[in-house]
Amino acid sequence: MAGRRGISAMAQKQLLVLVDLDGVMADFDGHFLTKWKQTYPEEPFIALEDRKTFYLVDQYETLKEGLKPKIKSVYQSKGFFRELPPIAGACDALKEMNEMEGVEVFICSSPLFFYKYSSTEKFAWVEHYLGADWINRTILTRDKTIVNGHILIDDNVKIKGAVDFPSWEHVVFTAHYNKHMNLRGKKRLDNWTDGSWRDLIMDFKKRL
Amino acid sequence: MAGRRGISAMAQKQLLVLVDLDGVMADFDGHFLTKWKQTYPEEPFIALEDRKTFYLVDQYETLKEGLKPKIKSVYQSKGFFRELPPIAGACDALKEMNEMEGVEVFICSSPLFFYKYSSTEKFAWVEHYLGADWINRTILTRDKTIVNGHILIDDNVKIKGAVDFPSWEHVVFTAHYNKHMNLRGKKRLDNWTDGSWRDLIMDFKKRL
Repeated sequence: MAGRRGISAMAQKQLLVLVDLDGVMADFDGHFLTKWKQTYPEEPFIALEDRKTFYLVDQYETLKEGLKPKIKSVYQSKGFFRELPPIAGACDALKEMNEMEGVEVFICSSPLFFYKYSSTEKFAWVEHYLGADWINRTILTRDKTIVNGHILIDDNVKIKGAVDFPSWEHVVFTAHYNKHMNLRGKKRLDNWTDGSWRDLIMDFKKRL
Repeated sequence: MAGRRGISAMAQKQLLVLVDLDGVMADFDGHFLTKWKQTYPEEPFIALEDRKTFYLVDQYETLKEGLKPKIKSVYQSKGFFRELPPIAGACDALKEMNEMEGVEVFICSSPLFFYKYSSTEKFAWVEHYLGADWINRTILTRDKTIVNGHILIDDNVKIKGAVDFPSWEHVVFTAHYNKHMNLRGKKRLDNWTDGSWRDLIMDFKKRL
């Protein structure tokens, strides 16, 4: 990794941007809440603005013991990932970003460990909202540290894996549960609608 | 990519080995031939030892015009990827390799553009033959140049993508169709059974 080859790679002057799917492009938390209320109307729920943990099961379990199997049954169900609503502005922003000179965008997403539906449905989601060409720009991996890039835009504040020092700089996409977290100096991207993503990309491009 | 962060990454002294699935771990060509003869016994076929191209459709089309839809119907069918037989010694070698001190192994595989079955079934294959832990070590991407590693063991002689100079050194896994090809200096791994993979890994480890 890196060394002579890495330095050559830098010389290609292409900014490689990795973008997470759930919580960044697709509204996992919002869709879960909708489905949860529909499927288990008798159970307690957590309003989006009160969400505090990356894995929702961690917070739901504080409400009532034994909710885990019900929670899993919702997001492991057939169709859950395919039906995720896009986050406002995300798809247009990604298409525009990928058209910028010297910028290459890839979607970098973790399938569930229960991969049965999520792996196929993530590709289907991308195909539907971004177009078939983006199948070629989609990486499914449960370890994102092994993917090469200059930026990873991801809502998960802690990203760990086999590579201790990934090539990318992690930019945290703001979500209800992470908005009050201490990012220890990491940059944030708050949304896809106010145009701030363009400044972020231009700033990284200058550093190439 | 690379630069300061890349150099830090080298300091972790973990050899990252990426291994392709089809044609390296799983016998795509052999399984296709079996299914092809079963499904279209009236059509011509190419014996494995006469295979000459990476994409089998390229060679089959020289036999008879209009075979493409039939060929696709075989490898795009439900169950095709799940039923791929392992290549001799591959699974044991990968498990042993991943147990070696300072070695991290990941499976790096391209789903079909028609991803409907292949994406899920590749995870299912890995789970079945290597164990559920390996779901965490499986990367599905149609662009392998963007994955970080020291070695990529892959039967495809030409691997192109968004990154002009990938971090890995490509080691070509020998297959019927590539055995006579000029590798322009690339190393080969001929099989998983004669133990030569251990020498290959030890040689790369020395260079870390």
